[in-house]
Amino acid sequence: MAFSERVSRLKSSLIREILAAAQRPEVMSFAGGLPAEAMLPKVDWTDMPASMGQYGMSEGEPALREVLAAEARALGVDCDASQVMVLSGSQQALDLAAKLYIDKGTEIMLEAPTYLAALQIFQLFGAECLSFPLQADGPDLAALRVQLEQHRPVFIYLIPTFQNPSAVRYSETKRDAVAALLDEFGVTLIEDEPYRELNFDGGSATPIVSRLKKASWIYTGTVSKTLLPGLRVGFLISSPDLFPHLLRLKQSADLHTNRVGQWQALQWIGTEKMSNHLAELRDFYRVRRDGFQLALEEHFSDLADWHVPQGGLFFWLTLKQPFDTRTLLKPALEQNVAFMPGEPFFANPDQNVGSLRLNFSHIDPERLHEGLKRLANVIRQAQAAQAA
Amino acid sequence: MAFSERVSRLKSSLIREILAAAQRPEVMSFAGGLPAEAMLPKVDWTDMPASMGQYGMSEGEPALREVLAAEARALGVDCDASQVMVLSGSQQALDLAAKLYIDKGTEIMLEAPTYLAALQIFQLFGAECLSFPLQADGPDLAALRVQLEQHRPVFIYLIPTFQNPSAVRYSETKRDAVAALLDEFGVTLIEDEPYRELNFDGGSATPIVSRLKKASWIYTGTVSKTLLPGLRVGFLISSPDLFPHLLRLKQSADLHTNRVGQWQALQWIGTEKMSNHLAELRDFYRVRRDGFQLALEEHFSDLADWHVPQGGLFFWLTLKQPFDTRTLLKPALEQNVAFMPGEPFFANPDQNVGSLRLNFSHIDPERLHEGLKRLANVIRQAQAAQAA
Repeated sequence: MAFSERVSRLKSSLIREILAAAQRPEVMSFAGGLPAEAMLPKVDWTDMPASMGQYGMSEGEPALREVLAAEARALGVDCDASQVMVLSGSQQALDLAAKLYIDKGTEIMLEAPTYLAALQIFQLFGAECLSFPLQADGPDLAALRVQLEQHRPVFIYLIPTFQNPSAVRYSETKRDAVAALLDEFGVTLIEDEPYRELNFDGGSATPIVSRLKKASWIYTGTVSKTLLPGLRVGFLISSPDLFPHLLRLKQSADLHTNRVGQWQALQWIGTEKMSNHLAELRDFYRVRRDGFQLALEEHFSDLADWHVPQGGLFFWLTLKQPFDTRTLLKPALEQNVAFMPGEPFFANPDQNVGSLRLNFSHIDPERLHEGLKRLANVIRQAQAAQAA
Repeated sequence: MAFSERVSRLKSSLIREILAAAQRPEVMSFAGGLPAEAMLPKVDWTDMPASMGQYGMSEGEPALREVLAAEARALGVDCDASQVMVLSGSQQALDLAAKLYIDKGTEIMLEAPTYLAALQIFQLFGAECLSFPLQADGPDLAALRVQLEQHRPVFIYLIPTFQNPSAVRYSETKRDAVAALLDEFGVTLIEDEPYRELNFDGGSATPIVSRLKKASWIYTGTVSKTLLPGLRVGFLISSPDLFPHLLRLKQSADLHTNRVGQWQALQWIGTEKMSNHLAELRDFYRVRRDGFQLALEEHFSDLADWHVPQGGLFFWLTLKQPFDTRTLLKPALEQNVAFMPGEPFFANPDQNVGSLRLNFSHIDPERLHEGLKRLANVIRQAQAAQAA
């Protein structure tokens, strides 16, 4: 087989295996990031014009681009529709960014931990992944500055609002400081915000891209966490210098995003119907988050530490006795419990053992306690076996 | 700007400019490959289950994969649903194949001429593009064998049925011979078949992948030319050795194909409704093809040679006096006529001047004669200026 060198960096399918196992109905899954089925809104297709069946523009539907630009401006991002590209899910922004920036050995910078699928695609293209630790309110700024002084990453990839997996939300101060650092060192910012609207306890902070004065940037979002992931509609907004390149890369990837999903997204984004839906969604997830917190206190308080997430879809647990949680997967699945080990969310998994990501949005509350109890027991048994 | 080396190979946006110009209502366009608006079928969404809004599988919807496998088996392709992946348009097959196979300098083999967007994405990834000439019934086999003896391409990319741009359909003999050559030299075949169903004059030949005995293969198709391109639903079927790699690449590209479009495609593929629609489509396009042929005879018989296409969407004209047709674009657009110069369909455009691709499916028949007359005049004037 004469595959590309790139393919040798394709990661094992651990995550696929976990998610596949989690599909079995008897499995209590804390693994994925799926919206609750009950919260998928009813949508209507009757008024969709037949013209949505024809080929469309690589940039996306003009009306949708206008609405997305208006939403971003309302968040403080200085942009217009010409900077907006509709994508086949925001995952595609990572593919386009990898193509735009990464050759073998190219240095990039990421949070530790970071979004697993971002790490995978950047590594697939051969990136050298630098990282800096996250604190409760955002980056360790001193560590970030040291990295920027010692390296020349082509971009930094951040998820500053309800980060996946850590649920960290950057403070205003840290957002300003990060923007100033990126301007100082001339590093492009890729800011990924799938969870901004899943905000349970109020408070808000404008995107970091809105605070940049010089650095290039890509801001990306999606309707997958707020509307319907099955539509596969995400978007990016970029500084004007990057847009023409990203557009050609989009065109060569899949010509354009499906117009049916774009039309449906346009029926929602920026409407009162959407505001009402988001309010319901936040209420629903807040109740699930609170129930999960109570159950965690009952079953995990002796085992792990965590912050209560103020938004997003995940609890991030750090074991009091560090332990490679990848070894827990098999015994947990034997107990019909699925979760995400924390190690793969780090560029250097073996140097970062002992954390777990638990999704709280998808599991049936009836099975929550049983699931967490079983998972806690699996951890206790593994730690006892290790101590013996 | 520290972009990847890859980006330096992003082609100029000539094609985008042509297609953008062709959007102006006053322009008579022979440029794109758009289905006729009148032939976009009415579709119904009322029965789509709400579950199509949730995240789906990277492989695609199981029921759709089954139907696509059954259709392929009916064409003689030995496969089952586990080898089928639903894609965000068949363009995505090219992106995945490029990622799977191409490093900088990797040799691949293509028809001359070939599909422009395939050439572009393979070159973007750094491929060294070898090519061989097409004859009326398929490859020049002697030239192909010489290339295979002298080089080690990792794959060959072919469009054997109503090729874009040349409209060539490989004969049975040539299909067998190509399969035997690929088995002999162990070269993977990527067979792209968007136009198979747009067959105006009868006759049929099974895919080349169905004739392989040893070589690996990827077969790709789409609903874009037969149903609705706006759904962005295509597929690939591969030999089992390639599938796991392609699947991980698909997952990292966009997680999965939009489920709304997949559900709609499933309502059509393999049904009587689809057979009826295809029959109408063939009748409609046959009439347009015949009208185009008459108009070409009137306006172009002194200027160019061509074969009447038996399927697909294009006439491929070779000028009797070779001439770089890219230079005709500007004067043609000034006359409100758009067409595709032939040169960019070759890996070495400057060594292959003097052909044009004309789409016959999209233009309003009322404007056909005027459009071709203007284009012929532009060519005459340019040739006269050159001779002067």
